[in-house]
Amino acid sequence: MIHSLHGIAGDVQYPLDLVGVFAFAVCGALIATREDFDFFGTLLLAEAAGLGGGLFRDLVLRIQPVAFTDLGYATAPFLATLLVFFNSRAHSWDTAWDVADAGALGMFCVTGTVKALQHGLNAPASAALGVTTAVGGGVVCSVLAREIPSSLIWDRDLYVVPAVCGAGLVTVLHATSTLRVATAVAVGLLAFALRLTALRLKWRTPRSALWRRTAARTGSRHRRRDDPARDRLIPTSKT
Amino acid sequence: MIHSLHGIAGDVQYPLDLVGVFAFAVCGALIATREDFDFFGTLLLAEAAGLGGGLFRDLVLRIQPVAFTDLGYATAPFLATLLVFFNSRAHSWDTAWDVADAGALGMFCVTGTVKALQHGLNAPASAALGVTTAVGGGVVCSVLAREIPSSLIWDRDLYVVPAVCGAGLVTVLHATSTLRVATAVAVGLLAFALRLTALRLKWRTPRSALWRRTAARTGSRHRRRDDPARDRLIPTSKT
Amino acid sequence: MIHSLHGIAGDVQYPLDLVGVFAFAVCGALIATREDFDFFGTLLLAEAAGLGGGLFRDLVLRIQPVAFTDLGYATAPFLATLLVFFNSRAHSWDTAWDVADAGALGMFCVTGTVKALQHGLNAPASAALGVTTAVGGGVVCSVLAREIPSSLIWDRDLYVVPAVCGAGLVTVLHATSTLRVATAVAVGLLAFALRLTALRLKWRTPRSALWRRTAARTGSRHRRRDDPARDRLIPTSKT
Repeated sequence: MIHSLHGIAGDVQYPLDLVGVFAFAVCGALIATREDFDFFGTLLLAEAAGLGGGLFRDLVLRIQPVAFTDLGYATAPFLATLLVFFNSRAHSWDTAWDVADAGALGMFCVTGTVKALQHGLNAPASAALGVTTAVGGGVVCSVLAREIPSSLIWDRDLYVVPAVCGAGLVTVLHATSTLRVATAVAVGLLAFALRLTALRLKWRTPRSALWRRTAARTGSRHRRRDDPARDRLIPTSKT
Repeated sequence: MIHSLHGIAGDVQYPLDLVGVFAFAVCGALIATREDFDFFGTLLLAEAAGLGGGLFRDLVLRIQPVAFTDLGYATAPFLATLLVFFNSRAHSWDTAWDVADAGALGMFCVTGTVKALQHGLNAPASAALGVTTAVGGGVVCSVLAREIPSSLIWDRDLYVVPAVCGAGLVTVLHATSTLRVATAVAVGLLAFALRLTALRLKWRTPRSALWRRTAARTGSRHRRRDDPARDRLIPTSKT
Repeated sequence: MIHSLHGIAGDVQYPLDLVGVFAFAVCGALIATREDFDFFGTLLLAEAAGLGGGLFRDLVLRIQPVAFTDLGYATAPFLATLLVFFNSRAHSWDTAWDVADAGALGMFCVTGTVKALQHGLNAPASAALGVTTAVGGGVVCSVLAREIPSSLIWDRDLYVVPAVCGAGLVTVLHATSTLRVATAVAVGLLAFALRLTALRLKWRTPRSALWRRTAARTGSRHRRRDDPARDRLIPTSKT
């Protein structure tokens, strides 16, 4: 069933994949230009954002990474870099990129999970790998640009949750033998819609506000980044 | 001999492994809450801290990563996240987490080295991979939280040294054909004790203090992070 | 032809490889001491800088990573650490390290591309992997030290461009069946010379200056790091 799914979806999957890689790559390139990277730095960040998640998935599944075997996958981030780097107007299309990124998120959390299931991973591991496929590129990209991955901190709109929902639903469909092309597409669209709604309504996950108060009360050793006491550990020449 | 070691230890190894992953995951989750990550960010950091080292080891050894095949390994960080995120009191159990982390450090530097030896790596490479297994998760976790890995800078108590001692001793035992379950456990306990003593007595490795004085004297091009001259390279809009 | 190339170059390749790893490792160790890492932190950064690029290449090619099978590859970064950590004078040999680093860059972009071609990757993927081999170690090292990779931001002299030229030329030689030891060495020397000239004449790639002006004009949501508005998202206890 999984294999037939792969067969039917094959023709549509490839162009969709390229569009998804392109969307992620644009977001990576936007981060790079924001951090003042040069052209090749922007290109590297675009490649990392576009292909990082899939590369990690393929390394874990121990298959030849598709990012290095198919020409299209490497070309899409290159085009994204050209667009972002040389077209100053591309930066103001915030909404368009958000929608494209949400679409790629919805698609990759589904296809990543399906690929992991195809290679015999159990349901939770497949869902985890699907989420990593969808979110991983952005995380690698943030790390390279020395930003805290925006998908991880509390003050951003839901990003991981739609991917978790999508990937989880795919494993449920698989367990109930109802994973078809149609249902897979429906799950992808659901994750896409969830991300868009979260953006629109500024849905956020709760942060552990408890924590900060506790730290203040108990004088815990674990201090926050903005705590000036932390910097004092390394004596600077300024003082 | 190595294989019999594996056979005998098998039954005890698995639950111990899960405890170790849990201990590392708690430390990752604590970093995440300190940085104000949301629930899923905390979960991702816990998974990275708990499973990162072993995942890297398995990728290098080119075997199916155990983190993605066994359900227990993915569940332990999840439980750690629940504990840390929803229980504000968990943050004040500093000493307990330090001891648990030290135990996991001692165990994984031994099991990582043994696994590498089992797959035919030479002694120094096995020791290096054992150290990476023990230390790697914490490093990945720090990078994601945009902290300098605390195991690497000079102003923290010994962390890498116990792992190096443990991994090195295992390769010595292997070379002298005295690697048994009992001796392996003894080495693990030694590394554990070394880490605890280092914490207790605040042992530190020397930093290269020479360096900073040299830089000041020679006006070297390599400047330190807190050198204001470094920031001047990128003109900011503040001035 | 590729295989004969490998055969002929074998004897010379190995010592050259070690010298290249040593050169990269010294640069990593210099970053580590600048950031005040202790001895083992410095060693880890040296290993990452020296072996990171090749390790990534071998993982993608799904072959046993040479960094963990051959003793010499792990020893070279160790020697580099000893040199940098205990010899304060080593830090003032800026020019020597720049030349050595440029040599390693030229060599690894060629050998990385050749190795990828040998394993059947297509030309663009091989070139990309060659560039990653040459640049990857430094990027990993920067990430661990929480620096923005200096090869990526605009205000540093050309670093990626020589590697791209070298790797690209190797694939052209391969496509035209003129890839011999002599031509490969010539390409390596060309990349080496290009990097040295860029250092000497302070060649830089353009940054996307357009971008910052656009952001100011449109009030885009994508803000720069030094924008004070960004920090306001997380209320600090300072205020």
